[in-house]
Amino acid sequence: MTKLYLVGIGPGDKDLIAPKAIAAVLASSDLVAYGLYLELLGSVCDGKSHHDLPLGEEIARARLALDLAASGKATALVSSGDIGIYAMATLVFELLDQQLQGKEGHPEWLDVDIEVVPGISAMQAGASRAGAMLGHDFCTISLSDLLTPWETIEKRLHACGEGDFVVSFYNPRSQKRDWQINTARDILLLYRPKETPVLLGRQISRDDENITITTLEKLHSDDVDMFTLVSVGNAESRHIVNGSKQWIYTPRGYSRKL
Amino acid sequence: MTKLYLVGIGPGDKDLIAPKAIAAVLASSDLVAYGLYLELLGSVCDGKSHHDLPLGEEIARARLALDLAASGKATALVSSGDIGIYAMATLVFELLDQQLQGKEGHPEWLDVDIEVVPGISAMQAGASRAGAMLGHDFCTISLSDLLTPWETIEKRLHACGEGDFVVSFYNPRSQKRDWQINTARDILLLYRPKETPVLLGRQISRDDENITITTLEKLHSDDVDMFTLVSVGNAESRHIVNGSKQWIYTPRGYSRKL
Repeated sequence: MTKLYLVGIGPGDKDLIAPKAIAAVLASSDLVAYGLYLELLGSVCDGKSHHDLPLGEEIARARLALDLAASGKATALVSSGDIGIYAMATLVFELLDQQLQGKEGHPEWLDVDIEVVPGISAMQAGASRAGAMLGHDFCTISLSDLLTPWETIEKRLHACGEGDFVVSFYNPRSQKRDWQINTARDILLLYRPKETPVLLGRQISRDDENITITTLEKLHSDDVDMFTLVSVGNAESRHIVNGSKQWIYTPRGYSRKL
Repeated sequence: MTKLYLVGIGPGDKDLIAPKAIAAVLASSDLVAYGLYLELLGSVCDGKSHHDLPLGEEIARARLALDLAASGKATALVSSGDIGIYAMATLVFELLDQQLQGKEGHPEWLDVDIEVVPGISAMQAGASRAGAMLGHDFCTISLSDLLTPWETIEKRLHACGEGDFVVSFYNPRSQKRDWQINTARDILLLYRPKETPVLLGRQISRDDENITITTLEKLHSDDVDMFTLVSVGNAESRHIVNGSKQWIYTPRGYSRKL
């Protein structure tokens, strides 16, 4: 059985890549990944065959990874963050599922030995750079309505508000989508204070990192692009300023014992 | 300014500890951590002063870490998983907040230079061992009502159901608490099918790892202890079996394009 590693390499900082991710790349002859990720990985990719496909070709990328592994080549499919969170891993299992149901013509995929290597996701990197925003119950919502109907996303935004979850938005904006983050803000404002702290993190943990702390009321799509992590506190989250440093944290409980 | 590193070392597998976490420990003279975590870290802890406090003394542990750093000792406060997720980081910032409000007698804490190093959380490790359960919108809920009133937790369980979020339960059970996970199951059964796949992960990524896949209907506190991660799929999550291997994944979207 040939190995297919599904590997998350974290938010961008080399020092946040797990040794297990490096080992998976080293054990592979073929890498399916954006070129940028290979740059982040550095010399461990030397001598490997590199396969890339344009942005948007995620399904083709998952198929390619399964095909390469099924052909006998130890393969690593690499993504940033955690490959299990809004990333490629689930597509690979969805294709496997299709094959198990006889809807794909690729019985050879079933002989591939899949191993998933988790990584640090953007919400974690962002929270760590600004304090401890994820200290209590939280959720994640993708604002992309390419694959999920907007009604479902809207229902989740209301549920997030009702439950007073800290929330991290993935895919908050794209070139073609700009209104979703503003609508998300307006829905959350029905449930939590306008001063609720909001973290905007761009290129987190990379050289050009930019972290901004704002409030829910001031959250606007103009300040967000497709590389921005947007995390919104719950009603208990606190923004504190200590000289030139500022932090957001969410207390562990709703009754304090300090 | 003396450094206080707040360090998450992941689920237990040495190969999932980020180099940045190792570097933080190496840069410290004093470590505040359970002994078990130091065993996981291994020889990088050699020669460091080790400070420990009994389980349950989390606030004292956070104070101790701030005191050590304020006294001029580079200190690492270490936890498993991600120290920013249901862990010690938020307590440190809560104490800092109290000091900024003049409610603590420790102005020296404000001179400590805090750096948070995120780690891979149990839900991510569990999902990776069983496929890609966190492939779409998800939430986390702590079932401990020590610091959060049960009414708040129950409200979140209903919100999770309404929003059809994949959910990972932290603190699902303790020696004194056994009914919460059964109540959580009953609430979720109001919203999603009884066949919804459930992952029970114990000692994930460690030598004595135990992963069980069951259904929401069959989830029971008898099969859960304080070391168990419980993740429940959403209405779209799939349990698939390929020979001796089985997986759970949650599709990326609610409309398929395969």
